[in-house]
Amino acid sequence: MPKIVDHNKRKEEIAKATWRVISREGMRKATVRNIANEAGISLGALRYYFSTQEELLIFAMKLVHEQVKERMEKIFASPMNPKEKLTALMLELIPYNDVTRIEMEVWLEFVIHYRKSGIPMKMTDGIRSFVEFLINILQEEGLLKKDRDKDFEAERLYALIDGLAIHAVMEPERLNAERIRGLFMRHFEEICDFPK
Amino acid sequence: MPKIVDHNKRKEEIAKATWRVISREGMRKATVRNIANEAGISLGALRYYFSTQEELLIFAMKLVHEQVKERMEKIFASPMNPKEKLTALMLELIPYNDVTRIEMEVWLEFVIHYRKSGIPMKMTDGIRSFVEFLINILQEEGLLKKDRDKDFEAERLYALIDGLAIHAVMEPERLNAERIRGLFMRHFEEICDFPK
Repeated sequence: MPKIVDHNKRKEEIAKATWRVISREGMRKATVRNIANEAGISLGALRYYFSTQEELLIFAMKLVHEQVKERMEKIFASPMNPKEKLTALMLELIPYNDVTRIEMEVWLEFVIHYRKSGIPMKMTDGIRSFVEFLINILQEEGLLKKDRDKDFEAERLYALIDGLAIHAVMEPERLNAERIRGLFMRHFEEICDFPK
Repeated sequence: MPKIVDHNKRKEEIAKATWRVISREGMRKATVRNIANEAGISLGALRYYFSTQEELLIFAMKLVHEQVKERMEKIFASPMNPKEKLTALMLELIPYNDVTRIEMEVWLEFVIHYRKSGIPMKMTDGIRSFVEFLINILQEEGLLKKDRDKDFEAERLYALIDGLAIHAVMEPERLNAERIRGLFMRHFEEICDFPK
């Protein structure tokens, strides 16, 4: 009887091998051959799961999004107070440890790669619409200060997230988790009135 | 008598051909062969000016910095009022037209490329130290609001600049010059007291 393999699990393993190759050597080394090698499978086996390199790269990218989304949904549903919750959510979008650093590197490489490829993909919609959603909730719950402009605060927070994310990739020692947490905490204290 | 060629001018032309290749096709296509082709010179002629690809890429990157710096120094010395001057300076760091868009794309590609190459280069020091310098000046001139923390404001402004820069590369229609100008104007109004 043939060995039964969990098809999705295998696809995820290949996607994670793709991240490691991209993170270590950059997008230009993310060939199906190198990825198969990293995953410890044959080129033929890889082709069974992904018929083109493009298909594999898009799957690998979507898996980054799903992982981040899953972690954020958990935080969202948790019983933290608003200020802690907001800061914890933001921290998930900044590379502050090895897992999130790889996600960010992969994301950056993908964005640049797809800009050149001409394939239409809205990579950033996830974070921007999440930020808008967040600012709306803050207003609905009466936390956003009365004099705040929602459009401005959403655009600024969105820029702050991606600016800190890219800086944390470049200067991981200086922009460590504690410093990033402190920056967001202060920013939210400025735009919100939190209950004491 | 041999034709006299301006050595530096020729090097700049080659650097600008490098930008065009990187902007159009990405770093992986920035080979000496493609660059010579784009510049309309032979491979031998290119090698006369730059003996290695690395040397050429670093020169091309430094030229981006110099151009931006030169434009900013002009603005700094101009007779605008503080709020206009601050906003104009910020706008030079965001890709809001074809020239600055190419600079930003080249910068992003370089940053990612050099991270992988292991060559130690402090790419971001320019903007970060400029932002710190700016916040210090605002304080010295009594423009920065009294309750503001300099370290926080410098880090936030630095993140805001690069966040908006990367978003403007991704969504040039939405984040046009007017919108970016308005965002910075509002941010500075919030952290500064400008004379009426």
